[in-house]
Amino acid sequence: MISEKMKKLLKGNSVIREMFEEGKRLKNIYGKENVFDFSLGNPNLPPPEEVKKAIIELVEKEEPTFLHGYMSNAGFEDVREKIANSINNKFGTKFNFENIIMTVGAASGLNIVFKAILNPEDEVIVFAPYFSEYNNYIENYNGIVKVISPNLNNFEPNLNELKEKISNKTKAVLINTPNNPTGVVYSESTIKEISKILKEKEQEFGKQIFLISDEPYRELVYDNREVPYITKYYKDTIVVYSYSKSLSLPGERIGYVVVPNEIDDSKELAEAITIANRIIGCVNAPSLIQRVIPYCLNAKVDTDAYKKNRDLLYSIIRENKFECVKPEGAFYLFVKTPIEDDKEFCSIAKKYNILVVPGSSFACPGYVRIAYCTSYDMIERSRKAFEKLAKEFEF
Amino acid sequence: MISEKMKKLLKGNSVIREMFEEGKRLKNIYGKENVFDFSLGNPNLPPPEEVKKAIIELVEKEEPTFLHGYMSNAGFEDVREKIANSINNKFGTKFNFENIIMTVGAASGLNIVFKAILNPEDEVIVFAPYFSEYNNYIENYNGIVKVISPNLNNFEPNLNELKEKISNKTKAVLINTPNNPTGVVYSESTIKEISKILKEKEQEFGKQIFLISDEPYRELVYDNREVPYITKYYKDTIVVYSYSKSLSLPGERIGYVVVPNEIDDSKELAEAITIANRIIGCVNAPSLIQRVIPYCLNAKVDTDAYKKNRDLLYSIIRENKFECVKPEGAFYLFVKTPIEDDKEFCSIAKKYNILVVPGSSFACPGYVRIAYCTSYDMIERSRKAFEKLAKEFEF
Repeated sequence: MISEKMKKLLKGNSVIREMFEEGKRLKNIYGKENVFDFSLGNPNLPPPEEVKKAIIELVEKEEPTFLHGYMSNAGFEDVREKIANSINNKFGTKFNFENIIMTVGAASGLNIVFKAILNPEDEVIVFAPYFSEYNNYIENYNGIVKVISPNLNNFEPNLNELKEKISNKTKAVLINTPNNPTGVVYSESTIKEISKILKEKEQEFGKQIFLISDEPYRELVYDNREVPYITKYYKDTIVVYSYSKSLSLPGERIGYVVVPNEIDDSKELAEAITIANRIIGCVNAPSLIQRVIPYCLNAKVDTDAYKKNRDLLYSIIRENKFECVKPEGAFYLFVKTPIEDDKEFCSIAKKYNILVVPGSSFACPGYVRIAYCTSYDMIERSRKAFEKLAKEFEF
Repeated sequence: MISEKMKKLLKGNSVIREMFEEGKRLKNIYGKENVFDFSLGNPNLPPPEEVKKAIIELVEKEEPTFLHGYMSNAGFEDVREKIANSINNKFGTKFNFENIIMTVGAASGLNIVFKAILNPEDEVIVFAPYFSEYNNYIENYNGIVKVISPNLNNFEPNLNELKEKISNKTKAVLINTPNNPTGVVYSESTIKEISKILKEKEQEFGKQIFLISDEPYRELVYDNREVPYITKYYKDTIVVYSYSKSLSLPGERIGYVVVPNEIDDSKELAEAITIANRIIGCVNAPSLIQRVIPYCLNAKVDTDAYKKNRDLLYSIIRENKFECVKPEGAFYLFVKTPIEDDKEFCSIAKKYNILVVPGSSFACPGYVRIAYCTSYDMIERSRKAFEKLAKEFEF
C-alpha cells in the first residue's frame, strides 16, 4: 500500500519512536525530575521578547489579508531585503532581496536546494558525524550520499579523504558548522582549505561543485568564537539558515536560503529553488512569522544560558573521566563511549535514567550525543547518575 | 547546473511570471482601478475575527517554548483531536486525533500523501479541468498523471472514461470538489458512482485504489449546496484539507490530511504520511497557527460576499451571451471562449484590461477561468469592458 522507499523509512522511524516511548515510560515510573533526558535537540530557552511584541503589533496594525495572504513563493520582498541587509552588516557581504528565499525552516531549505540541483545518481558529500536526516533529504531526489569518515582527533573535517572522494559525480559538499552532533565550529583555515580543494576540483572536472552550508546553529557559539561566513570564501556556496535555534521558534518553521550572485546563473538557480519551494507544497514560508523576522534581526535567545549548561555538563563529563572534545557551538556534547558498542552504552546509561543518542545515528559509532538544551537544574541533578554510570566502566 | 526536471519547470514558470508582469504593466499604464484582474485565486476577504483574537490570546497566555516549539510531526494532539471532533459533529464520522495529520497547507498535504503511496510509474487519475500543480505534485514522486477528458455539459466527472482508464497501474484517483477551475460541486450521486466504480476495480485488480479528495474549497458553497463527505462513501479515501480559503489564511500554510481507520493498515499509512511530512522538510505544520485552529472551528469568511460576487459576475457574463455553467462553489467561473483558441481570447480580453487564465492551463482548452475573489466594485467596473469584449465576437 505504501511506497517501497517509505517502507524502509517506517522501520527506522520505529527505532526513534521506541526511544521516545522509553523516555515516557521511565518518567512515568521514576518521576519526571528523576529522568535525565539528553536525547532531544529541542531548544528549552524562551524566544526573545521581540517575537511576542512583533506578533501583537503585526496583528493589531497590519491589514489581515496582507499579513496572512499569499506573496511571492520566495517570500515578502521587504522581509528578504531586510534580512539581506542584516547579513551584509554582520559579514560585509552584498546581498539584496533577490539573493534570499524564505523557507519553511532549514529542513525545507535543504530539500528545495537538493530538488533544484540534483539529478538521479548525483553525489552529495557529507562529513561524519552528521545529522542523519541529510540521508533522507538527499535520497528524496535520488541523490547518493557519500560519507567522509570522522576525524576523531578534533571533529574538524577529514580533508584528505574529501580530496579522494570528490569525483565528477559530485554535485555538492554539505557542511554544518557549528556542528550537530559535535558542537565543533570549523576554523577559518578549515573553510579556506575546503574552498581551495573545491576550486581545484571544479577545474579538474570542469564542473560546478556546490558547497552547501547548513547553519541552524550559527548564533549559538561561546567563548567569542567566530563562525566564518562561507560565501566569502567560495563562490559556489549556498547557505541554508533557520531561526529555529537562534530565536527558539522550531515549531514555526522559518528560515531562508542564500544564493549569492557570484554563482554562475545565480538568478536561474534562485528561481529553480523558488519553484521547488512551490511544488514540494510549501508554496511559501508562513506569512505572519516571516513578517516577525525584521523585528528580531538583532535579537537572539540567551546564549549565556546554553554556555552555562555546556560548562556544567562538560565538567561533569570530564570529572567522570569520559572523553569529549569541548564544543564551542550548538548545544551538544559528543562523548566517546568507554565501550565500543555505543548502543550498548546507551542501554547501560538508561539504567541510571540517562537518555542519550548513539553516535551510530550520526554515522559515528563509539560515541554518544548529549544534548544540553535542557534545564540547568536537570544537568545538576544528573551528576550522581553520571557518577554511577562511570563506575560501571571502572575508570 | 540545475536538475533536468527543474529545467522544464523553469520554462513553464516564465509563462506565469509573464502574465503577472503583464498585469503590473497594465496597472501602471491605465491605473489600478481600470485593470480588471480576474487571474488569481487569492482570497480577498479578511479572515474571521476569531483568528486575530486567538493569536493575541495565545501569545499572551501560552508558555512560548510550547507555543512556538516542536511537537509530534503529525501536529499537536489536542488540536488534531478537536479538528476530528469538529468533522465528526458536521458529518457523522468517527475520527480521533490519530486520523488527522496537520500539514503545511493542502499543497503540502497532497505532496506527503503522494510521497507516502507512489512508486515510480504508479498512475494517478485526474479529471480535466484540474489545477495544473497536480502534475508537479505527482511527478515529484515519479508518478504518472492520467487525465480524464472534461465533461463539457456540466463539468461533473466523465465516469465512462474513468472506468476505461483505471488499470492495475492506478494507485489513486484525485478529485477536487468544489472544483478549481469550474466551481462545480460534485453531486452525491456522482460520489456514489465513483465509489462504486472504484470498489469494482479494486476487486477486479485485487488491489487498493485510493480516492484522494482535495478540499480547499469545501466551505465555499452557495445556494445551500451540500458537499458530500467522501470518507462516508468509499473506505479507501484520503481527505486533504486547507484553511487557506475558509479562513483566508493562504500565506500561513495550514491544513490537514484525514486517514480514516477503514483503510487497511491505516495506522501504517498515517505514519508513512507523517514521516513524509518530516523528511520533505516541513517537519510539522507551523505551531502558532496550528493552535489558532481550535478557536476557529465554527468560523469562516463571509461567503455571502463571494456569493454576491458570483451573482454579479455571472449576470454580466450571461448578459453578454458568454456561455458558462453557473458554479455553486469555490470562487471561479469557467467560461466558454467564443473562439476555439483560449489563449488568443485571453490576449483579446487584455485589450480591454481584462485578465483571465486560459483553460489550457487546466487541461481544458476553449475555456477561461475568471476568479471572483476580488472586490465587488471591480466586478461592477468591469461590466463595460466585458460588453466591449463581447462585441468583438458579434453575438
